[in-house]
Amino acid sequence: MFWKGRNLYILLAFILLAMFASSVLTLTIVGPLSFAEQGSGASGGKSAAGGFTSQELKKLSTTYELIQSQYLQEADRTKLVDGAIRGMLDSLNDPYTTYMDQKEAEQFNDMLSSSFQGIGAEVSLEEGKVKVVSPIKGSPAERAGIRTNDIIVSVNGEKLDGLTLTEAVMKIRGAKGSQAKLQVMRGGAEPIDIVVVRDDIPIETVHSEMLEDGIGKIEVREFVQNTAKAFKEQLKALEDQGMRGLIIDVRGDPGGMLQAVVEMLEPFVPSGKPIVQVEDRAGKREQTISKGASKPYPISVLINNGSASASEIMAGALQEAAGAKLVGEKTYGKGTVQVTYQQEMGDGSNIKMTVMKWLTPNGNWVHQKGIAPDLPVDQPAYFRASPMSKKTTLKADMLGDDVKNLQIMLEGLGLSPGRTDGYFSDKTAQAVKNFQTKSGLTADGEVDAKTAQAIEDAITKEIRDPKNDLQLKAAVDAVKKAIKLK
Amino acid sequence: MFWKGRNLYILLAFILLAMFASSVLTLTIVGPLSFAEQGSGASGGKSAAGGFTSQELKKLSTTYELIQSQYLQEADRTKLVDGAIRGMLDSLNDPYTTYMDQKEAEQFNDMLSSSFQGIGAEVSLEEGKVKVVSPIKGSPAERAGIRTNDIIVSVNGEKLDGLTLTEAVMKIRGAKGSQAKLQVMRGGAEPIDIVVVRDDIPIETVHSEMLEDGIGKIEVREFVQNTAKAFKEQLKALEDQGMRGLIIDVRGDPGGMLQAVVEMLEPFVPSGKPIVQVEDRAGKREQTISKGASKPYPISVLINNGSASASEIMAGALQEAAGAKLVGEKTYGKGTVQVTYQQEMGDGSNIKMTVMKWLTPNGNWVHQKGIAPDLPVDQPAYFRASPMSKKTTLKADMLGDDVKNLQIMLEGLGLSPGRTDGYFSDKTAQAVKNFQTKSGLTADGEVDAKTAQAIEDAITKEIRDPKNDLQLKAAVDAVKKAIKLK
Repeated sequence: MFWKGRNLYILLAFILLAMFASSVLTLTIVGPLSFAEQGSGASGGKSAAGGFTSQELKKLSTTYELIQSQYLQEADRTKLVDGAIRGMLDSLNDPYTTYMDQKEAEQFNDMLSSSFQGIGAEVSLEEGKVKVVSPIKGSPAERAGIRTNDIIVSVNGEKLDGLTLTEAVMKIRGAKGSQAKLQVMRGGAEPIDIVVVRDDIPIETVHSEMLEDGIGKIEVREFVQNTAKAFKEQLKALEDQGMRGLIIDVRGDPGGMLQAVVEMLEPFVPSGKPIVQVEDRAGKREQTISKGASKPYPISVLINNGSASASEIMAGALQEAAGAKLVGEKTYGKGTVQVTYQQEMGDGSNIKMTVMKWLTPNGNWVHQKGIAPDLPVDQPAYFRASPMSKKTTLKADMLGDDVKNLQIMLEGLGLSPGRTDGYFSDKTAQAVKNFQTKSGLTADGEVDAKTAQAIEDAITKEIRDPKNDLQLKAAVDAVKKAIKLK
Repeated sequence: MFWKGRNLYILLAFILLAMFASSVLTLTIVGPLSFAEQGSGASGGKSAAGGFTSQELKKLSTTYELIQSQYLQEADRTKLVDGAIRGMLDSLNDPYTTYMDQKEAEQFNDMLSSSFQGIGAEVSLEEGKVKVVSPIKGSPAERAGIRTNDIIVSVNGEKLDGLTLTEAVMKIRGAKGSQAKLQVMRGGAEPIDIVVVRDDIPIETVHSEMLEDGIGKIEVREFVQNTAKAFKEQLKALEDQGMRGLIIDVRGDPGGMLQAVVEMLEPFVPSGKPIVQVEDRAGKREQTISKGASKPYPISVLINNGSASASEIMAGALQEAAGAKLVGEKTYGKGTVQVTYQQEMGDGSNIKMTVMKWLTPNGNWVHQKGIAPDLPVDQPAYFRASPMSKKTTLKADMLGDDVKNLQIMLEGLGLSPGRTDGYFSDKTAQAVKNFQTKSGLTADGEVDAKTAQAIEDAITKEIRDPKNDLQLKAAVDAVKKAIKLK
C-alpha cells in the first residue's frame, strides 16, 4: 500500500492496472500512419542501403558465436537476439523506444484494448495477504459472491502466500471461460470455496459525476480504445443534466493513444483551430485542425506530475484553445509520439518507437518541461506519507523515516506532533497519547504495530474524503467563479 | 574525497588509478589459452552452425532499418552495432562479460600493462580544484618541479574548472614525448607556468616494508603485468633482511591477471599441490600444480570486501595450501575467469567473456560467497565516515546523515558525542565545544564549514596513522604468536 498523487480510493481502483503503469506511458498511434513517408519502407529484412554492412554483420555474428562456443553457460538463442534488439534501441537513449517480446507485446495490446480476461475483482496486498478491495460491478467475481475484504488464499489449489501482487494477479487472471477455484477467508476460521468463471472484464477508464451547483467532473484514467466513446457519452449525460461548468481530472493519467485524445478534444476546440501539432524528424510540422465547436461552459483541468503524454495534450489544448484553467501541479513532460511496429517483426514481438514530437496548438514543445498549472495547488502533506514499517515500536528519542511519516500523519489528523523531521520528541509522544486516548488504545505514547495501523487507517479515511482533495476544491472554486463572471 | 576500506594514504595514492577501478574487477587470461578447446573456433565471422538463423537476422536488420528510417533522430551506426553487441552480452546477466569499444579496450590494455603515459602526479579534486597530492618519484612531474598541494589551473590553455577528476586527468595525460603546459597556483596570487614533457609512468602495484620484530609486509594493489616480478623481488629483499613472518595485504585489491597470481603463489604452495583449479562449461576440471616449495615463516593475509578475484585466489590458496591465517573482513566473492577476445573482433574493440570458474586448491567455489577471515577484524567506524556536506551549520536538535557522520568522527577522536544515530543532542554539542576549545576555534558547539573541515582534517590524520589500522595490528599479533609457537 502506497499513497501517492490522487486519493486512495482512486489508487485502489487502479491496483489491477498498476502492472501496466510503466508500459502505458506512451502516446501510441495504432493502425496505419497518416504520414505516407513513415511506417513503410522498413518491412523487409533483405537490407538495402539501410541494412548492416558486412563488417557490422561480422562483428555481430562473431559476438554471437563467441557466446555460443565460449561462454561459461549455454546461452538461450532467443534471449541473445532479443538482447541485441534491446541493446540497439537502448543505444538511442530514449526511454519510450522499447522492444517487447511476444508476451510483453500481448500485454501491451491488451492494455490498449481497455479490457482483460479475469474474474473482475480489485485486489490489494496487505501484510502479505491478497485482499479484495471490491468486485467490479457486474463482473463474474461479483456474481459469484466475492465480497470486499475477502482474503484470497489460493487459486486452483495454488497458494498465493509470499507472492507479489503482480504474481498473485497473474494467477487469478486467465482466459475467458476458464474456472478460477478460489479459497477465500471471510472472518471465520475455515476458508470458503468459490468458483468463478473468467470473462472479459472491461476497464473503466472514464468516471463522471455531478458535483454541487451544476459542476460536472469527468475523470480520465488513461486514453485507450473505448475511452473517447465513454468520455463523449458521459459528457453528453452531464450536459443533459444542465451542467454549468466542467472539471476534467487527468491527475495520474499516464497517457495512451493519440487518436483517443484528439477525438475527445474536438468538441472543445473551435473549428479551424489546431488541436495538436506533430513534427517529424525532418522538422516538418502537421496540424490536426478541429472541425468541432466550443462549449458554452467554463472548464478546468486537474493536473499533477503523473499527468503525462495524452493527458498533457488534453491539458495543453484545453488551456490554449478552449480557455480552460489548469489546476494542481506541473505535468510530467512527455512530448513525443510513438508508433508500434508489430507486423514488421513478423513473430508477434513488437517495437514501440518514438517517431515524432507533438506540440500544443500554439506550437509549444513540453518535453522534459511539463505544463505549469494556472492555479498551483498541492495536496495536503499526508497524501504523500508512506506506511510505517511496523518492525519496531517507535518511541521518544528515536529517529528515522518511520518517525517522519508518523509525524506527517499525526499532523494530518490535527494532532500537532511538534515537528515533522523524523525526531520523536516529547510533543510527538503527547500527540500519539492523544490519538490513543481518542481511539481507545492504551495511551502510552509509543507506536507499536497496532497503534501504527490505527493511525494509518485514520489517515486513509482522511485521504478518501473528497473534502480533503484541495486540488479538486480549488478547481470547483475556479469554475464557480467563472460561472458567476458569465 | 571519500574514505573507505583501507587507509587514506593508500586511497590517495590510487586516485589516478581510480578510473579503472570498475574495469579491473577481472581475472583475465592474456595471450593464447592453455586450453586447446577454448579460445579457438570462433575466429571467423562467416557463421556456420553457431551463427544467426535467417529469421534471427531478419529481426535484427528490421530493427536496424526501422531505427534508420523511422526514429525521431538520426542514429549513429557504430553506436547501434555496439549497442546490439552490448545487448547480447547483457542478456547473459553476467557483470563480468562486457564489450569494450576501441577506446575502452585501449584503456583496459593500458591498465593491464601497469603503466600509462602522462606527467606522473597523483591528483585529487578538492572543492572543485585539481590539487597535486604528490608527484611520483622520478616522474616528469617531479623533475619539472611540481610539488604537493600545487593547484593545477589549466593544461595547454584549457581550464580545468568544473571538470570531474577523470575529465581533468584525461586532459593532463597524453602521449609520451608531448608537452603539458601547466598553469599552477602555489600560495601566491599569480599562477606559475610549468612545462612537463610526458613519459611512460610505471604504476607501482606492490609496496613492501619491514615492520617490527622482523615481520615483513607486502601490499598488492592489483595483479597486472609486472606485479609478479615486483612481488618476487620485494619478497626476496625482505627475506634477505631475515624476515621471520610475512603479512600480505590484498585489501581493496580488485584482481587482475590469472598468470600473475599463479606465479606469485608458486613459491608458497608445496610442490605437487594445486595452486588453483579451473572448471570449464562442460564441468571438466584442470589443476595448476605447484612446482614450488613452502616457506619456513608464518604468513597472514589481510582481506576485506574489496579483495576480489585474483586477491581471493591468493587468499584461498595461502589459507588452504600454505597454512596462512586470513585476517580482516569477508572477501568480495568473484569466482570466474574471463578471456578477452580482441583479435576476433577485428577493429580494436574487445569482448571480455567469462569462460571458466576457478576453485580453491581444495575445490571450493567462492563465487557470490567470498572467503571468510580466520580472524574477523573490523576497522574503526570512522574509517567509513563520509565527509559532511558543509552546506548548513549543524547545531543542537538537528538530524540527518551529516550529523551522523559528525558523531562518528567525534567518537573517533575520543570526544564522546553521546550518540551516533544522527540526532544532534546536547552531549554532541558539548563534544563539539571540546573539540573547538582544543583546536583554538570559537567554542559555540555549532559545526560550520570551518569546524567541519577541522574535524575532518583531524580524522584524516587518525586514518593515516598506521596504529589505527586494527586489521594490520591483528595480523601482526597473529604472525608474532605463530613465530613464538615455532
